[in-house]
Amino acid sequence: MKKTVRHLLLASTALATITLAGCATKDHTLAVKDVGSFHVGGRAVTLSGLPTREIVFTPGAAPLKVDPNGDFEVEAMYARYTLLDNPKARYPLLMWHGGGLSGVSYETKPDGKPGWENYFLRTGHNVYVSDAMERGRASWARYPEIFKSEPFFRTKKEGWELFRIGPVGSYRSDPAQRQAMPGTQFPVEAFDQMAKQSIPRWATNDAATQAAYDAYVKKVCPCVILVHSQGGNFAFTAALQNPDLIKGIVAVEPSGSPDPATTDFSKIKGIPMLWVWGDYTEQMPFWQGIVKRQETFRQNLQAAGGKADVLFLPQANIHGNSHMMMMDKNSDQIAERIQVWMDSAGLMQ
Amino acid sequence: MKKTVRHLLLASTALATITLAGCATKDHTLAVKDVGSFHVGGRAVTLSGLPTREIVFTPGAAPLKVDPNGDFEVEAMYARYTLLDNPKARYPLLMWHGGGLSGVSYETKPDGKPGWENYFLRTGHNVYVSDAMERGRASWARYPEIFKSEPFFRTKKEGWELFRIGPVGSYRSDPAQRQAMPGTQFPVEAFDQMAKQSIPRWATNDAATQAAYDAYVKKVCPCVILVHSQGGNFAFTAALQNPDLIKGIVAVEPSGSPDPATTDFSKIKGIPMLWVWGDYTEQMPFWQGIVKRQETFRQNLQAAGGKADVLFLPQANIHGNSHMMMMDKNSDQIAERIQVWMDSAGLMQ
Repeated sequence: MKKTVRHLLLASTALATITLAGCATKDHTLAVKDVGSFHVGGRAVTLSGLPTREIVFTPGAAPLKVDPNGDFEVEAMYARYTLLDNPKARYPLLMWHGGGLSGVSYETKPDGKPGWENYFLRTGHNVYVSDAMERGRASWARYPEIFKSEPFFRTKKEGWELFRIGPVGSYRSDPAQRQAMPGTQFPVEAFDQMAKQSIPRWATNDAATQAAYDAYVKKVCPCVILVHSQGGNFAFTAALQNPDLIKGIVAVEPSGSPDPATTDFSKIKGIPMLWVWGDYTEQMPFWQGIVKRQETFRQNLQAAGGKADVLFLPQANIHGNSHMMMMDKNSDQIAERIQVWMDSAGLMQ
Repeated sequence: MKKTVRHLLLASTALATITLAGCATKDHTLAVKDVGSFHVGGRAVTLSGLPTREIVFTPGAAPLKVDPNGDFEVEAMYARYTLLDNPKARYPLLMWHGGGLSGVSYETKPDGKPGWENYFLRTGHNVYVSDAMERGRASWARYPEIFKSEPFFRTKKEGWELFRIGPVGSYRSDPAQRQAMPGTQFPVEAFDQMAKQSIPRWATNDAATQAAYDAYVKKVCPCVILVHSQGGNFAFTAALQNPDLIKGIVAVEPSGSPDPATTDFSKIKGIPMLWVWGDYTEQMPFWQGIVKRQETFRQNLQAAGGKADVLFLPQANIHGNSHMMMMDKNSDQIAERIQVWMDSAGLMQ
């Protein structure tokens, strides 16, 4: 308990310092050195021998012939950065989103309140928010000629249940009729707004997605990665492939990781890692299984001598968090716990 | 000439003032009050009666059945904003991209140098950069069930020729073999990097795209819109639908507009507008036609008593600019001319 208090004080001090790093007259000011973005990774492809396609440009009008053949750039990813005049973190913070989503997960929350990008900028991190290959500004490529399968689109029902906003079977088309988890921290009234952030995904692009993430890591790291859900496996794999470039990983409900049985944990034991889990996981077999597999991976890393910490929020008396905890009403409270861990892991100056 | 000099001085003064608006100790600092983003517009749709689809999640593995039916949020658009402590512009600046592209057009240039978002932030504008419905972080919807046609993908050859990087017929797959326009300002070595920003587009989404833009204008305006290429028609139409909310339009090589014959110019004569055209347009019949039609629209606005200015860059002794002038090597020189016009149009404080 004492330790927690000290940590919370630490974090508060950090916050105070950062705001002062802004213009003296306005304590909310972010003193920003630069903003920008880039595409990284990917490859050139040439399509040939495809039949000319007919596309109707105006409903009712005659279709026009479009030749789909030619040269394209595909399978890059996109990142946007905000760099501070006086960062307090030792390394830039890369924020990697989960499945069917984009970097928007970390920006303003669906309820209109500041998200984790804003929080970690204000605690002194140079922040990079990316869209994985195939999503958002990274863009996507023709299928089946380049991507090998068709995309799929997440229904609101799937999101409602998978993200643990409400129990299985509790989704209704009418927002007023939906039954959320008792005590949920998710702003239920903003669920449909969150659904606007959904982006189609492919099931057959993991290798290309990983290749783009690896190119991204080589471009901007050394860094710390904060990763969510589907992104977890990409971040752990990136760490195994470039252990010297990744200085820490915060894995927020990662859904997967390399097989512990075939992983050389000695390669990544020098990278401090924190797993963060929300509420209600023990009520859902799907999530129980994921937590169990992730705990095996984490304990293997720990056994190899790594700093492999885990924060089960309910055990820390923080209740009601969904899989989308960066959008939950108490997202800042969770971010502060992550910030405290970053302090303890030596990731701040 | 005198006038130009005065204007350039004006602009330089503006620049100096802005940098001082940052932290006194660092003249490159942007004093940022807030950053954030949102999705706006769109609608809820329900798909039903569609057959379960089989998707192969792992090449070689048996396909899994995926039910595509359910509730979705579709046809919203996305905007990201950066707000300054001390904006010098009277209204926020909304930057709308062109066809087959996203808001990335205005961020860091493909050659890695600062783009127009950065320029206009540093001259004191609160800047909003958006992705139109169907592009980038706005996301896209299933076709043909929701979108009515299939998307098309721009080849590098089309971009090379359409954007006037090189003459028709001069594109080659091998960058070393490409013949650019003599004196081009486009950073030819970064052309393939620009191609990574390409995003598929649909020919049948104009109404939904306009609806999202109109919702966006209602949410964040009064504002000034800087718009490129395909976006032009959406911006002019938005102005006709909400003339009181739009305080100025900078149309950078707009490719279309409402039919002048049926447009009530008296509704928008109070909105100062500037058309900006690059080089080589007179060499290409496609662009000659677009310029001619846009000049008709502009002259009608002028005849109705509006401030409808035009900047043909070559006539201002600025040569070599492509259709993607915000990515050209002299993009800041063009932005400065736009900034000078904004001063002259009373859009700065």
